[in-house]
Amino acid sequence: MNARSPATLVADTGRGNEAAILNAALDAFGTHGFHGASMRDVAKRAGTSLSNLYNYVPSKSRLLAEVLRRANDELAARLGAALADAGDDAASRLREAVRAYVRFIVDHQVAMVVSTNEVRYLTGADRAGLVAERDATQAVFEDIVAQGVADGTFATPYPDDAARAVLTALSAVAGWYRADGRLSRGQLAEQQARYALALLEAPLAR
Amino acid sequence: MNARSPATLVADTGRGNEAAILNAALDAFGTHGFHGASMRDVAKRAGTSLSNLYNYVPSKSRLLAEVLRRANDELAARLGAALADAGDDAASRLREAVRAYVRFIVDHQVAMVVSTNEVRYLTGADRAGLVAERDATQAVFEDIVAQGVADGTFATPYPDDAARAVLTALSAVAGWYRADGRLSRGQLAEQQARYALALLEAPLAR
Repeated sequence: MNARSPATLVADTGRGNEAAILNAALDAFGTHGFHGASMRDVAKRAGTSLSNLYNYVPSKSRLLAEVLRRANDELAARLGAALADAGDDAASRLREAVRAYVRFIVDHQVAMVVSTNEVRYLTGADRAGLVAERDATQAVFEDIVAQGVADGTFATPYPDDAARAVLTALSAVAGWYRADGRLSRGQLAEQQARYALALLEAPLAR
Repeated sequence: MNARSPATLVADTGRGNEAAILNAALDAFGTHGFHGASMRDVAKRAGTSLSNLYNYVPSKSRLLAEVLRRANDELAARLGAALADAGDDAASRLREAVRAYVRFIVDHQVAMVVSTNEVRYLTGADRAGLVAERDATQAVFEDIVAQGVADGTFATPYPDDAARAVLTALSAVAGWYRADGRLSRGQLAEQQARYALALLEAPLAR
């Protein structure tokens, strides 16, 4: 995990040790994966007892779901704020949404990696809830793509798949980003925005 | 694993039960992840004994490395064959390399997913060998990008990062491709080739 962003998802709100548990869980899932992480390890990292951990959450699956739900909430809030500040045209909206997503990845890289790699181990309501949240994020990008395709800004021949292509490329950034890499946060965000506009076949400044 | 391509990596060559072991291992790693898969389970799926499995390979890590090495060899062979048949210009070479990569993903989806998700659990020589093979694949795409940037075919302002962006977008296909999906193999390959050319800011037929 060298040079990755720290695995801190939840600010300590003073509500008992909830923040400590969620951050410890994220750290454990990020380091060992869902199957490799143990509730005992999470309790130890959180500085609490195993019985207190089970008092807070009934299962490891539920703990993973809760961690990922918090991450999705944070991403959704950032996307909403970015779009509220963006211009009305599709290219501006896409650029700001991508930049917000990249900043989220940089700030919550471990959560992104865990989300990408471990959500497949969830089942039932835990999985359904996260899939619904992901679909909502994808819908944000699909709306922007639809707007730009309708008004001719985006010339992609794949209007139905392009939003997903943009999102999968973005989420892959979490797999290789390093805080000590060549690009600054801002440069990375600009780069990814340009890639997204290029992929959608938007007019680009040369 | 509904509607995913079957987890068959190695054709049965008649060399004892090597193919059965490698295919069973891929299936187990694909279903349960590296930590969730057990050597006992692999042996059972392969129709052999645990002691015979350990006779073939000394550890679960080594087994994962061997499975992924086979997959990388297959991908490298396909890329080489595709480029041998491609035109000399950068756009043609990129298109054929992407199409070959997509066909590999479709044929060996589970191997791609396992490679993406589980390689991080490998260490030492096993990891180094796979990283070197991945770097070789990336070098194929970097050469094509460098050619197209040098001759003006690709206008991307990010010549040093664009090959990785193309590859991460491609490898993400393994995460969502379904054999019963809307796009045929050929359509998927064409779509991804277009995305790659668009991302590199190549001239595109409108």
